[in-house]
Amino acid sequence: MIEATLPQASLLKKIIEAVKELVDEANFDFSETGIRLQAMDKSHVALSFLHLREEGFSEYRCDRAQTLGIGLGSLSKILKCAANDDQVQIKASDSAETLELAFESAGKDRVSEFKLKLMDIDTDSVDVPDMDYQATVSMSSQEFARIVRDLLSIGDTVSIDATKQGVRFSASGDDGKGSILLKHQKTVDDEKNTPANTTVQINEPVSHSLALKYLSNFAKAAPLADRVTINLIEDAPVMFEFKISDIGHIRFYLAPQIDEDMDV
Amino acid sequence: MIEATLPQASLLKKIIEAVKELVDEANFDFSETGIRLQAMDKSHVALSFLHLREEGFSEYRCDRAQTLGIGLGSLSKILKCAANDDQVQIKASDSAETLELAFESAGKDRVSEFKLKLMDIDTDSVDVPDMDYQATVSMSSQEFARIVRDLLSIGDTVSIDATKQGVRFSASGDDGKGSILLKHQKTVDDEKNTPANTTVQINEPVSHSLALKYLSNFAKAAPLADRVTINLIEDAPVMFEFKISDIGHIRFYLAPQIDEDMDV
Amino acid sequence: MIEATLPQASLLKKIIEAVKELVDEANFDFSETGIRLQAMDKSHVALSFLHLREEGFSEYRCDRAQTLGIGLGSLSKILKCAANDDQVQIKASDSAETLELAFESAGKDRVSEFKLKLMDIDTDSVDVPDMDYQATVSMSSQEFARIVRDLLSIGDTVSIDATKQGVRFSASGDDGKGSILLKHQKTVDDEKNTPANTTVQINEPVSHSLALKYLSNFAKAAPLADRVTINLIEDAPVMFEFKISDIGHIRFYLAPQIDEDMDV
Repeated sequence: MIEATLPQASLLKKIIEAVKELVDEANFDFSETGIRLQAMDKSHVALSFLHLREEGFSEYRCDRAQTLGIGLGSLSKILKCAANDDQVQIKASDSAETLELAFESAGKDRVSEFKLKLMDIDTDSVDVPDMDYQATVSMSSQEFARIVRDLLSIGDTVSIDATKQGVRFSASGDDGKGSILLKHQKTVDDEKNTPANTTVQINEPVSHSLALKYLSNFAKAAPLADRVTINLIEDAPVMFEFKISDIGHIRFYLAPQIDEDMDV
Repeated sequence: MIEATLPQASLLKKIIEAVKELVDEANFDFSETGIRLQAMDKSHVALSFLHLREEGFSEYRCDRAQTLGIGLGSLSKILKCAANDDQVQIKASDSAETLELAFESAGKDRVSEFKLKLMDIDTDSVDVPDMDYQATVSMSSQEFARIVRDLLSIGDTVSIDATKQGVRFSASGDDGKGSILLKHQKTVDDEKNTPANTTVQINEPVSHSLALKYLSNFAKAAPLADRVTINLIEDAPVMFEFKISDIGHIRFYLAPQIDEDMDV
Repeated sequence: MIEATLPQASLLKKIIEAVKELVDEANFDFSETGIRLQAMDKSHVALSFLHLREEGFSEYRCDRAQTLGIGLGSLSKILKCAANDDQVQIKASDSAETLELAFESAGKDRVSEFKLKLMDIDTDSVDVPDMDYQATVSMSSQEFARIVRDLLSIGDTVSIDATKQGVRFSASGDDGKGSILLKHQKTVDDEKNTPANTTVQINEPVSHSLALKYLSNFAKAAPLADRVTINLIEDAPVMFEFKISDIGHIRFYLAPQIDEDMDV
């Protein structure tokens, strides 16, 4: 028996919107400590991780660990039927064939109930080791989304170069090239970063070329978090992390392109 | 000779937007007491009624009863040329071949004149008797529009179930099913319903299955009225009424589907 | 060596948006006194002139006259990467193969650099003599854009009739006809026209028929200027002028259609 309640449907809506760009269907692993999802995108290039801790829910109960295969397009349609400030409850009995969702309006005068058919999804679990990244960029998630959108109009690939001075995003295409430099700004207290502030914590300069179309998908998570961190290390996937306040995070891993072309 | 003036073009715009979803061309019957329109949709399933009383116009003159056949697409295009707060005057001489429209800006510095060719339209008049409905639901028209839009993402057919407790809208489709319950809320004074309030006046519980695509068309009338009433009775079309303040109403009739499937 | 700086990227964005509707690629002539562009549209019917005076730039330097051939679609894409209040600098060395653009955010923490490949464009320069127009209409550019959009839903051709009473725009099509009259309003001081005010300075009444699709393109310049002047004279192209405050203007010339049909 699973029962999990969130006071605001908007949070769940945003989470599913962020994940469904990359993945059509996914296994949600429910356990005592919360919900985890791990999924490769259709082309097996980008890896998405979602972790929602039980203490982030207003109510959470999971009698025994259970994996629910969910079509994200269908779930997204159902969530569109919830008002942003509806309370949302998700429920599944043991060996359930459907996920039950209930939305209750703030005034309790409107109750919506939906049942979504569950799916059997084959997945291989990938083990992603924790890494000591060479460089960590912390920046506004809105600014990240904007840079990705802007550079997509120039080319297909972005080079991300992190140095002590800041982080540079560059792309080139048939008509020309472009690069955007965000300067590192010292802050007295990292926790009090203003949303527009950029910081680069760096051991060694590192640079990677990445396919912009995936970053464009990752950017769909911007509504979930004011800031994104980009974690870089030589010879390993780049990790993008969006912290979801008080409840967890969503992480995307993307392998760099081998042919790096960084001159702009 | 017909002359009818409305102080705000926005009202006429909204009326035509609501009707043109269902009907391409329609006969407008002008008489001393006002304007009436009755039209079946193209698939002869839904019936639209419009009644605008002469006292709702700032000026109204109709020397003798006259029927004007109007293409609603063309009329809608012309009305797009009026600012919302323009005064609008419609005019037709006896046995006219065109409808004349004049829009005058509040400052009177801008006068637009349009002529729309009239059409000969064959229609059969349908007699719709007044009924003692078993159940009348009064609810926010915005909420109605939203529920219809939400359930369209689930399935094609909605079941409307009216009971003393409230009204339930439900639909099912390939991915699952959904239902939305609006609870009946007692009000001291029905005239003072808040827009979000739902009331169900009921003699006997009644439930009908209806094609959502028609309800989606009816919902285009939501900008005309804060509230919609849904009137249900066994073995007869469901009537949706939007009252247009101080001037009249628009009513839609839709025959229920015979194969009722109401379990959700 | 060319270097020109504008304090607000929004101005350059609006200019390029206005011109790129008519012209895919164009030669920009840089000289000591400023920048000029002259281009025929693809169908060789409408002529666009742009003039930006050097004193309108916060910095301007042009060592020797130079013509840069620029693809406006690509330039527009690059300008989308500038925030509206970014400072924008354009730069080209002598015999450059690329135009360099730099956008700097107000806080100077974000610097974007773009390089756009230049093109060789063959153009014939057209000499447009200054004229003593018979009638000059000065009106709100928003109102102009709106009338053009409205009449496009009626027909393909607009007749513009300027008289002492005002200016009338009319069109006719299959469904009917429409005309919009803006009355001439005396103003004590022409420089202090309110945006919604219309004035007609007239020596002789004049009327021309013009293809609405070009006017629809000209109307893209409305964000650049509160007002547009329409300058009419018998047997010569109509000139539409949008003054760009403190820096220059954009002018469009359009030959009238020979078969004038002005009865509405």
